[in-house]
Amino acid sequence: MLTVRTDLAVEAHALWRESAGETTRLKGVAAREEQVEGMTVTRVEILDQEGARALGKPEGTYLTLDVSPLWRREEDAFPRAVRAVAALLGPLLPEEGPVLAAGLGNQAMTPDALGPRSLDHLLVTRHLGEVLPQLRPVAGLGAGVLGTTGMEVAEWVRGAAEQVRPAAVIVVDALAARDLERLCATVQIADTGLVPGSGVGNHRMALNRESLGVPVISIGVPTVVEAATLARDLLGDREAEPEALRGQGQRLFVTPDSIDAKIRDLAKLIGYGLNLALHPGLRVEDLTSLLE
Amino acid sequence: MLTVRTDLAVEAHALWRESAGETTRLKGVAAREEQVEGMTVTRVEILDQEGARALGKPEGTYLTLDVSPLWRREEDAFPRAVRAVAALLGPLLPEEGPVLAAGLGNQAMTPDALGPRSLDHLLVTRHLGEVLPQLRPVAGLGAGVLGTTGMEVAEWVRGAAEQVRPAAVIVVDALAARDLERLCATVQIADTGLVPGSGVGNHRMALNRESLGVPVISIGVPTVVEAATLARDLLGDREAEPEALRGQGQRLFVTPDSIDAKIRDLAKLIGYGLNLALHPGLRVEDLTSLLE
Amino acid sequence: MLTVRTDLAVEAHALWRESAGETTRLKGVAAREEQVEGMTVTRVEILDQEGARALGKPEGTYLTLDVSPLWRREEDAFPRAVRAVAALLGPLLPEEGPVLAAGLGNQAMTPDALGPRSLDHLLVTRHLGEVLPQLRPVAGLGAGVLGTTGMEVAEWVRGAAEQVRPAAVIVVDALAARDLERLCATVQIADTGLVPGSGVGNHRMALNRESLGVPVISIGVPTVVEAATLARDLLGDREAEPEALRGQGQRLFVTPDSIDAKIRDLAKLIGYGLNLALHPGLRVEDLTSLLE
Amino acid sequence: MLTVRTDLAVEAHALWRESAGETTRLKGVAAREEQVEGMTVTRVEILDQEGARALGKPEGTYLTLDVSPLWRREEDAFPRAVRAVAALLGPLLPEEGPVLAAGLGNQAMTPDALGPRSLDHLLVTRHLGEVLPQLRPVAGLGAGVLGTTGMEVAEWVRGAAEQVRPAAVIVVDALAARDLERLCATVQIADTGLVPGSGVGNHRMALNRESLGVPVISIGVPTVVEAATLARDLLGDREAEPEALRGQGQRLFVTPDSIDAKIRDLAKLIGYGLNLALHPGLRVEDLTSLLE
Repeated sequence: MLTVRTDLAVEAHALWRESAGETTRLKGVAAREEQVEGMTVTRVEILDQEGARALGKPEGTYLTLDVSPLWRREEDAFPRAVRAVAALLGPLLPEEGPVLAAGLGNQAMTPDALGPRSLDHLLVTRHLGEVLPQLRPVAGLGAGVLGTTGMEVAEWVRGAAEQVRPAAVIVVDALAARDLERLCATVQIADTGLVPGSGVGNHRMALNRESLGVPVISIGVPTVVEAATLARDLLGDREAEPEALRGQGQRLFVTPDSIDAKIRDLAKLIGYGLNLALHPGLRVEDLTSLLE
Repeated sequence: MLTVRTDLAVEAHALWRESAGETTRLKGVAAREEQVEGMTVTRVEILDQEGARALGKPEGTYLTLDVSPLWRREEDAFPRAVRAVAALLGPLLPEEGPVLAAGLGNQAMTPDALGPRSLDHLLVTRHLGEVLPQLRPVAGLGAGVLGTTGMEVAEWVRGAAEQVRPAAVIVVDALAARDLERLCATVQIADTGLVPGSGVGNHRMALNRESLGVPVISIGVPTVVEAATLARDLLGDREAEPEALRGQGQRLFVTPDSIDAKIRDLAKLIGYGLNLALHPGLRVEDLTSLLE
Repeated sequence: MLTVRTDLAVEAHALWRESAGETTRLKGVAAREEQVEGMTVTRVEILDQEGARALGKPEGTYLTLDVSPLWRREEDAFPRAVRAVAALLGPLLPEEGPVLAAGLGNQAMTPDALGPRSLDHLLVTRHLGEVLPQLRPVAGLGAGVLGTTGMEVAEWVRGAAEQVRPAAVIVVDALAARDLERLCATVQIADTGLVPGSGVGNHRMALNRESLGVPVISIGVPTVVEAATLARDLLGDREAEPEALRGQGQRLFVTPDSIDAKIRDLAKLIGYGLNLALHPGLRVEDLTSLLE
Repeated sequence: MLTVRTDLAVEAHALWRESAGETTRLKGVAAREEQVEGMTVTRVEILDQEGARALGKPEGTYLTLDVSPLWRREEDAFPRAVRAVAALLGPLLPEEGPVLAAGLGNQAMTPDALGPRSLDHLLVTRHLGEVLPQLRPVAGLGAGVLGTTGMEVAEWVRGAAEQVRPAAVIVVDALAARDLERLCATVQIADTGLVPGSGVGNHRMALNRESLGVPVISIGVPTVVEAATLARDLLGDREAEPEALRGQGQRLFVTPDSIDAKIRDLAKLIGYGLNLALHPGLRVEDLTSLLE
């Protein structure tokens, strides 16, 4: 049983292989690497219920983009990453029709603010329909947190969806990883929506095709590793409950001290990537002058 | 015809009397003063279509509380004003059932931020139902602005209402007055909901019993006077279009330089007043320790 | 005597001419128009004490840039305006040495937030000296307000100046105009520092060469017209004290409802203009990628 | 040699005892427990250079208040903790004269925002001298971060101190602990000022009696544990450099997911404690009505 927490399919797959042995092939799961804009993408496809059970994630496609070139300050890393996000997102979106995007998480807590801050960079166009009918209608929710509104985030998105009647919903959220190397260095894009209990916060109730009736694309970046996960990795014991982590009665997580700057850059990356995917005529340069 | 803009029924009534002569009585409108917590309340009731046409406002009850004692720093003015707001609100609310409150306006523009900031002081309880079933369920929307979400504020509230299924909706908004004396000095509570085009901002589509299916109570405070209204008053000519106001192609308004501090205090007054009205067992003192 | 309040030398000059007659020439003041980047600049020079008394402003050079092309969305208006601000600022700055910039005003009140928000767009470089010694050292204070720190803003700037030992100080502040047409449409750059009591807020104590020992350049944009000024203009009576403006015991001002968006754009204009003037090798395009 | 990082003298002392053996007594250091307002205080006094070397902290008095009753929701825990902070601070402050308080750290990063947010609850009185001469003059700096101003925080405080000429300086900062149990659960008050390199951020240059010429009291709360410290504790090896922590080229820290709410409460605790210590006539109840 997996007690090491990860929201990344690519890590869940690696964990499975650690347990099962390198040479075993997991039935019901296909994984392969590809290059997009000179950046590495790992594509994990969970093909059936067996694969879903093994990895603890619903059936569907999980794309993982390695954005570590951003932090190594490789040339043109930012526009390349934006175009890569758009290239991965595009095929998952319906060709036309309104789109509703929602940024989940708590704006006031840095590692959980990725969702709302990404929405700050989204071109919201739905209300411009009369002026600019050629633009795809996009509505955006920088969804508040449960404690502030008294509504579950899923209700919030459903309520908006009933008004907007979107052809697809996109949800952006902060994730938890297993591997410290992946913190802020990986963008996961999946067509499976958002599974309850994911993320740093406490987002209950699923946001997926079953509950919303349309495709739900999720975009996330791991911004924390649970301290318990780190501890188990350090101790090489997946069941360990080290004394040092007890007694607080609260979840502890590990995050880099540069998290604030990184969330800022990642939010812009995701917002821009969404814009390029939703409005294929645009270029990265256009976005800067439109949005900043 | 009234070209002097006001969102206050009490001012619309006074303007009508200015035109018609002091001794004339307007059929279809009843107005009287009363005292609540040592503060003056003017109750204007628009009884029929004739009254509605004359005052340019829908039929219903409009209560105007004079909160100038707050700014004169009268003793206990704040808790008295909170109790007065609650006393006026209480009879307009259904005795039980969930309530959805929405703060309209643009948080980023001081005079228009009253709505969202009032919601910051609201006890949001709907998500606590399992823990504290004795509390009335209250959900709260510090509604974003149109330009940010791509949704009309009315869609936003309707979407939430379909999830929350409230027994009543409360909307808080900044208003425009005619008289500079009333700036930040008057709270208007009405059972008519919110008429399109009211407020400082540009809130289209009605929020009222017709559109939402439940009673809609509106609470507002005038935070601006339109410059054109001031000009017409100064010139004693309701039709004047003074050269000084032309050519900007934009609305100009008059607001006090203390507006920021006043909005802060008024938002707390309204939030607290809502809490007392919604949870009759509470006292003002309780709110401070619960909320601050 | 001038009772019409304006912080703009160009308006003070025009007012003087209104009083004195079009054909009269004011001794001690030279004014002329020029074009920079296709935008109109009015240069008012107050040459001696007689001119200073007549216009109610200290001796020095006042440059007024008409940025209304920004709001008419003329082509390339933004980069042209940035280059124009830099071209006007450049000759007022010493050729080398550290510079201290301070953004005056109250961030929480939109029309008074120009100063602090401009500083958000400033390339602050003083702490990068070891890494990038070729960059001119620039320190920046998004100065808080008096009520928050218990210090006068002038003390605040003086304290920083004693540490930074700048070759020049630049202060950015919101101004009051007489003419509604000029609201947000004019940038005034002066080499006279900041005269006490200017601006929307209440900034006491001078920031100028006398008090700081180095050149003090001020940059401001009128963001409000005092309601009393508007009233006197409307009534054609500079001494009028209209009843409508009495009794509030507070200053009232007129400001556009688009003030929030305009402050945002103007803050970026001023910050970028400062950057170009301070680092002549940069281009507007560079700033976008460095700062956004 | 200590490679386990802690800013808490009480932990440094415990670490020394772990190394040296329980029965050994460290010369040059005195430690004892006492009760204040029903809460436990540990007083560590570093008496000479030998003690300073052993604990890696300058000579002086370090008071550690256990505020875990706050999180256990003990009755009256908040006002008791406020009075305890004030009781510990009082004897360290000069009896009269102006005081300058500075909140260090980065407001935008939750665990490092304790300093600036504490200042939000400080009664700033220095500018009220003419109106309320009986109040002790207090100035407060919610000091910005190095990267924003181009000035070191120490320059910033020194610049203000030259203007205010305080009898004492108080600095508030977030700390790093060794023990996860202490996260947000301990307030350390010391009369030694702030040693360079402490805290979550990167505050260079000392703020102490030597550099400022007056007593410098520091108040801090551990809000993070370095991931490396946790790892070494888990592995029982103070020299370990686990692979999992390598390669990021950045500091990683562990913090609770409730950090945002806790920082909010702790900032209020410290601000209120400062107010009670600086104005002995006040009570906790007074602060609520004055400040909220």
